Amino acid sequence: MEFSINKSIEILERTPYVLIQLANNLSEDWTMNNEGGETWSVFDVIGHLIHGELTDWMPRVRTILEHGESRAFDPFDRLAQERESKGKPLPELLDEFARLRAQNLNALRAMNLQSPDFDRRGRHPALGVVTLSQLLATWAVHDLTHLHQLSRVMAYQYRDAVGPWSAYLGVLHCEGHGS
Amino acid sequence: MEFSINKSIEILERTPYVLIQLANNLSEDWTMNNEGGETWSVFDVIGHLIHGELTDWMPRVRTILEHGESRAFDPFDRLAQERESKGKPLPELLDEFARLRAQNLNALRAMNLQSPDFDRRGRHPALGVVTLSQLLATWAVHDLTHLHQLSRVMAYQYRDAVGPWSAYLGVLHCEGHGS
Repeated sequence: MEFSINKSIEILERTPYVLIQLANNLSEDWTMNNEGGETWSVFDVIGHLIHGELTDWMPRVRTILEHGESRAFDPFDRLAQERESKGKPLPELLDEFARLRAQNLNALRAMNLQSPDFDRRGRHPALGVVTLSQLLATWAVHDLTHLHQLSRVMAYQYRDAVGPWSAYLGVLHCEGHGS
Repeated sequence: MEFSINKSIEILERTPYVLIQLANNLSEDWTMNNEGGETWSVFDVIGHLIHGELTDWMPRVRTILEHGESRAFDPFDRLAQERESKGKPLPELLDEFARLRAQNLNALRAMNLQSPDFDRRGRHPALGVVTLSQLLATWAVHDLTHLHQLSRVMAYQYRDAVGPWSAYLGVLHCEGHGS
């Protein structure tokens, strides 16, 4: 499928409500445990998504529109949520994510971007030249990669409870692929 | 985490509403495309979940309680949704799944199962002896394995649109692990 602003927004506007249905008022056994070591819990992932709304996606859209390739994006701090979310209740984080996402999509719609805009180029600090359409498609797929991760982190908590059925449950054999 | 009937039901009762938020009235580009070949679309997965509510989970609970290890479960037809869902609109399938899941959870709660019941044993046609707790944990993780799959199938439709960011998006590097 080719990039479409409307089909990207379709995903982006749903994600907060998907996550609210999945995680609001869920037991902490599901939301506060991770996959061991430095991996992330459901709580950590929601904090990461909030940080992206504040510092990553729309600021990068604006950097492309204002500076093109002449200015690289600010690097994204993948550990910021440890500082910013600590001690907050998960329902509060989910509401904050929904509020920030709605604000950002309103701002995006207000830009009234048209076909030629989506080919405008920017510069990623590690990946090099990227386009506005790639940034907006990535924002949507970034939601999906974290939904993929959340389902895996939650399933992991029941990895022993399923007994021999583990062999049939693909999510228990996913190695995370860096997400 | 050890098996808990309440923590299993927490997942099971949320899944239909997670899927409604994710897929109801979403463009067919997201819901009707698959990952190529004989793989499943979002539409196919919802059909598979409906078939499980009708023929798999609660019938197997009853087989364990009534027959123990003396009678193997009926095998699950993994392709039934091709016949049963064909031509139905996705919102109708999502509603049907929500209705069947609610009915099944009401039936499960009405059984008022207690700790010793969860160790009762049944016989899986391929896996051999399993327990009631393993069956109920698997029902919940089966939801999560398909949520994991849905996020991957949807992300796949934008695999080219994200450009060089593909390297950072784990969901685009998941090979499915048989789910």
